[in-house]
Amino acid sequence: MNVTLRGKRQHHRTVSFDALSNSVVLIEQRLLPHEFRLVKTRDYRETAEAITTMVVRGAGAIGATAAYGLAQGARAFRGSRLDRFETHIEAVYQTLKHARPTAVDPVNAMNAIREEMAMGETVSERQDIAFAAASRFAEEDVEHCRALGEHGASLIQDGMRVLTHCNAGWLAFVDIGTATAPIYAAQAAGRKFHVYCDETRPRCQGASLTAWELAQQGISHQIIADSAAGFLMSRGEIDMVIVGSDRVLGKTGEVANKIGTYTKAVLAHRHGIPFYVAIPLSTIDWDLGSGLEIPIEDRSGDEVLGAWGVIPGKSGKLGKRVYVRIANPTSTARNPGFDVTPPELITGIITPHGILKPKALSKLRGKR
Amino acid sequence: MNVTLRGKRQHHRTVSFDALSNSVVLIEQRLLPHEFRLVKTRDYRETAEAITTMVVRGAGAIGATAAYGLAQGARAFRGSRLDRFETHIEAVYQTLKHARPTAVDPVNAMNAIREEMAMGETVSERQDIAFAAASRFAEEDVEHCRALGEHGASLIQDGMRVLTHCNAGWLAFVDIGTATAPIYAAQAAGRKFHVYCDETRPRCQGASLTAWELAQQGISHQIIADSAAGFLMSRGEIDMVIVGSDRVLGKTGEVANKIGTYTKAVLAHRHGIPFYVAIPLSTIDWDLGSGLEIPIEDRSGDEVLGAWGVIPGKSGKLGKRVYVRIANPTSTARNPGFDVTPPELITGIITPHGILKPKALSKLRGKR
Repeated sequence: MNVTLRGKRQHHRTVSFDALSNSVVLIEQRLLPHEFRLVKTRDYRETAEAITTMVVRGAGAIGATAAYGLAQGARAFRGSRLDRFETHIEAVYQTLKHARPTAVDPVNAMNAIREEMAMGETVSERQDIAFAAASRFAEEDVEHCRALGEHGASLIQDGMRVLTHCNAGWLAFVDIGTATAPIYAAQAAGRKFHVYCDETRPRCQGASLTAWELAQQGISHQIIADSAAGFLMSRGEIDMVIVGSDRVLGKTGEVANKIGTYTKAVLAHRHGIPFYVAIPLSTIDWDLGSGLEIPIEDRSGDEVLGAWGVIPGKSGKLGKRVYVRIANPTSTARNPGFDVTPPELITGIITPHGILKPKALSKLRGKR
Repeated sequence: MNVTLRGKRQHHRTVSFDALSNSVVLIEQRLLPHEFRLVKTRDYRETAEAITTMVVRGAGAIGATAAYGLAQGARAFRGSRLDRFETHIEAVYQTLKHARPTAVDPVNAMNAIREEMAMGETVSERQDIAFAAASRFAEEDVEHCRALGEHGASLIQDGMRVLTHCNAGWLAFVDIGTATAPIYAAQAAGRKFHVYCDETRPRCQGASLTAWELAQQGISHQIIADSAAGFLMSRGEIDMVIVGSDRVLGKTGEVANKIGTYTKAVLAHRHGIPFYVAIPLSTIDWDLGSGLEIPIEDRSGDEVLGAWGVIPGKSGKLGKRVYVRIANPTSTARNPGFDVTPPELITGIITPHGILKPKALSKLRGKR
C-alpha cells in the first residue's frame, strides 16, 4: 500500500523479498505508528526471529514471511547433494514453524512449497522452485485480498459509518488486507465514508496499526474505546461492521478473532446492523467441528495491566517507546486473546469467491 | 474502608472533615493506585479546586466534599452581620457549584444544607447548622451505602464470579460504595467469590481504583480488558454483573453510567446473566422522561489516544506517573463518556430500601 514518508508517496508491501541479497524485507511493525522502518533479515534464522518477536504479525503476513524464509534457507545452501539439502531444509522448516507455534499459515505455506520442491531433481532446481513458489504464494495473498475487496466494496455506500476491530489491514497481509480490502476498494470507487477503529485493548492494534493505515490511505476515521461502539450503535451512528478472522470453521461457520469481536457481533445483532467477516480461504479450518475446540491463547496479564506508548515531548515531538503500568500493582489480570462468534450473528463472510452465509462455506471446499 | 499502609491496617473515609483546622480531608485519588496520600484543603476555594482537578471524584464523594466545603466556608466567616454572611455563603456556594458544572450531587447537597441554615437566627447558629448538616449528609451517604449493601449481599453466593465496570466503590462515595457494597457485605458474611474488574478504558478506573480497593479489602479479583467479558460470559464464567450509576431515570428506569455499561448489559441479557445497578436514591432523576434527554459528555480524545501510568523501574519500583501516546499521532478519537441502558436489560436496582425492578422505582418517590 501507499505510504507517505517525508512528503513522498511510496508503495510498500508488508512482506517482500530481495533476491539479490537473499533477504526478506519487512515493515518493522513494532515501531508503528511512531516510526516507519524497513528491515532486512539476512538468513532464515533472522526471519524466524522476526516472526517470533512480532516485527511482522498477522495471518497472511507471517505465512508469506515463512514462505520467503523457506526459499531464503533453500537458496543459502551450498553444494549439490540432495540428501544434505533436504536435511538442511528440514532444519529451516522446523525453525520457521516454531517461530509462532500456534499459527497455521506458516505451516500451510511451507508444506505447499515443499510439495512442489520435491518435483525438482537437483538442488539447484529445488532452490529455484522454492523461490518461485514463495513468490507465487505472496502474489496469491495479494490477489485473494484484492478479489475479496472487489466483492465487499459494494457493501460500503456513500455516507456510511463502518466499524472495524483490531487490525486485519494490509499490515496483517502482504498487501491490501481483508477487513480493510472492501474499504480500500470502496475508496478507489470514489465513495466517501467514515471508519471507526476500535482501539482493541490490550495490544491496541486498532489505535496504532489500523488507524495508521487509514491515515496513510487518506480515509476519514476516528479511534474509539472498545466500550464506545455499543453507545454509537444505540444512537444509530454505525451502519456496518467488518472484521477479519484468525480461523473460520468451514463446518459450522464459527469465527475466531481478536478478543472483543464477539461483543461487537452481539451488539450489531441487537441493533440490526450488518456484521461481515472478510477472509482468504486459507483462514478456513475444515477439520474442527465446534468453536469450543479452538484453542484460545491465554496471553500475559502484563498486556492488560499496562500499555506501550511514547511520551510526548516538547514541540509535539514523540520520545522513545515505553511500557507504563496502569493497573493496581498488587492485582493480576486475565487475558484471553481471542473469542468465537457464532454464525447466527454474522451477516456474511466476504471471500475471494464472493459473499457467503457462514453456514454455506462448504461450497468453497477444495477451492483456493 | 480499611487500607493497609506500611503493614498497618487503618480505616479511612474517602471524604472527611477536620473541625479543628476547618479542613476537608480527601484521599488524593489521582495518585492511586501507586501512592496513597491524604490531602487537606484549607479553605473552600481549595476544596472546589480539589473537585475540579479530580483529587476527589464519584457522585457521593463530590456531594459530601461540596457539603463539607460549604460548612468550611461558613465557619471561616468572621463577624456577626447576617447579610454579609449570606453574601459570603452565596460566593462559597457558586464556587463549589461550578467546580464540576455537570454534577448534580454537590448542588443537591448544598441546597439542602442552605435550607436548614436559614432556620438559624445568628451567624454563629447558621455556622453550627452548616457543620452539623454537612456531617449528617456524609453519615447518610455511608448509611445509604451500608443499607443497599445489606439488600444486595444475598445475591452473591459462595463460588460466584461477579463482573463490575468502572469504579462505584468506596472511593466514589464517603465510604463503602454502591456497586461494591453488596460485595463487601457478602465478604463480611463470610462468603468466598471472585470479582472481574473491567479495566474501563479510557480512564481505567476499574484497573486502577476498583482493583486497588478490592486488593485492600482482600477480595479475590482479576482485571480484564473491556472486550473480554463477552468471551467469559460465553464460556459460563460470569454469574452476575453489578454496576453503579451516574443517573437513573425514575420515570423510565433507564440507567446512565460509564461508557461500556450498556454493552455489558446487552451481553448479560444474551447469556441470561443477572444484571444489577446499585444506587442511593440521590442518583434518581425524577424529571427527565427519556434517556435520550440525558446529556452525554463528549470528553477529550486524548484519553482514548493514550493512557496514564508509571514506568516500572529497577527492582520492581515504580517511577513517576506519565502520559503515553498509544495511538497513531495523525488520527483523532471520539470519546463519549457515558451510555444509557434500557430497563429491559436490568434485572434489578439495588437501593437502600430494597431491590426493585427498574420500572417500579416510582414507589421510592419522596423517600430519601
